[in-house]
Amino acid sequence: MKAVILLSGGLDSSTILYQAKVDQCECHAISFDYQQRHRRELQSALLVAQQAGVVQHQVVSFDLRQWGGSALTDDAIDLPQERSLDEMSQNIPVTYVPARNTIFLSFALGYAEAIAAECVYIGVNALDYSGYPDCRLDYIQAMQEVFRLGTKQGREGKPITIVAPLIDLKKTEIIRLGNDLGVPWELTWSCYAGGDVACGVCDACRLRLAAFTELGLVDPLPYASHGFD
Amino acid sequence: MKAVILLSGGLDSSTILYQAKVDQCECHAISFDYQQRHRRELQSALLVAQQAGVVQHQVVSFDLRQWGGSALTDDAIDLPQERSLDEMSQNIPVTYVPARNTIFLSFALGYAEAIAAECVYIGVNALDYSGYPDCRLDYIQAMQEVFRLGTKQGREGKPITIVAPLIDLKKTEIIRLGNDLGVPWELTWSCYAGGDVACGVCDACRLRLAAFTELGLVDPLPYASHGFD
Repeated sequence: MKAVILLSGGLDSSTILYQAKVDQCECHAISFDYQQRHRRELQSALLVAQQAGVVQHQVVSFDLRQWGGSALTDDAIDLPQERSLDEMSQNIPVTYVPARNTIFLSFALGYAEAIAAECVYIGVNALDYSGYPDCRLDYIQAMQEVFRLGTKQGREGKPITIVAPLIDLKKTEIIRLGNDLGVPWELTWSCYAGGDVACGVCDACRLRLAAFTELGLVDPLPYASHGFD
Repeated sequence: MKAVILLSGGLDSSTILYQAKVDQCECHAISFDYQQRHRRELQSALLVAQQAGVVQHQVVSFDLRQWGGSALTDDAIDLPQERSLDEMSQNIPVTYVPARNTIFLSFALGYAEAIAAECVYIGVNALDYSGYPDCRLDYIQAMQEVFRLGTKQGREGKPITIVAPLIDLKKTEIIRLGNDLGVPWELTWSCYAGGDVACGVCDACRLRLAAFTELGLVDPLPYASHGFD
């Protein structure tokens, strides 16, 4: 089965890439350089894709700083730091990037149709970071309908399927799954801050560190600061 | 009312821009350089946007030649020429670009949310060129659901609305409407062929010329060849 895998280089997308391999997919990865603050993640995406032995890896470039609207695409908006997991889960955070997953899934859909792939894997999960509207099941279902109606393949009765294996998993469960699948955590990247070393205090670092800690595991990435020390 | 207008520089999108002005919108145009064969259309988009007096005009650049899959993004696929209107309407043509309107609408959605716009205008119409799956009403309705569920604005009960004023119009009706609205046809561009003068024989030129002819009007654009002479 030919599959397009949305790969940011983080824990979740790296885990679904390895899941797709277990599912016996021929994996075509796609990543995005949208001038995100943490473009460093693209290095990780390239390394993880290579390690996993994908057939092809497309990096699509565009500039979401043209209109900003997020702490990840506008340096004038401060990145939240040292927030508790509780605080993180309360509101849609300023790291929300307007329509990001819709843009990502749209490109993945175009790529999938051009290479006649049968499915698109995406690593969204709703439980840990439920603030993001475009990580929830009802949204994914709505995109599935777009995949069906908006393409030649779909109109011909062979819609490209969205596969979201992590949608109901907590971060700890994702790490447990990734461990079983042999995901090379040391190659991945989660930090939002944009440095060459993970900051340890942004929401992404704290979520990641908290989950490794809860599992009694050690995150192999070096951190500038350990938020929960 | 703040609106984002998808503007390619063709007849349809130029007409909806002028419609949005009549609808008293504050118009923010968005166009795409996707390395299309007919990038010449972007010059027209810029001129039409300027003539209409838009508040802002974003041109988003990315490269759909990375995977091609269309005569508009892969020079190895020949452009259909000298087809009758009947032939054009029978199948999804090779000028179909996988997921193009989904990609365009996704960026428009992100832009709209970043500037707190209330709607996105798109010039799709289903009647003349019904081959394109992502120009039909059911597809637009599916995208509307994505607009509602995939954004912060939507989750807060203020979804960005897709406005498709031309969805049920034939090309002749669009030209009649555009005439009433004062659309500067001489600035617009439809030709797919990629030359500096419209070819007159690609599907886009022939549809356009046939509609002007049917109305007893003269298309002010110069053509290399008049397909129906």
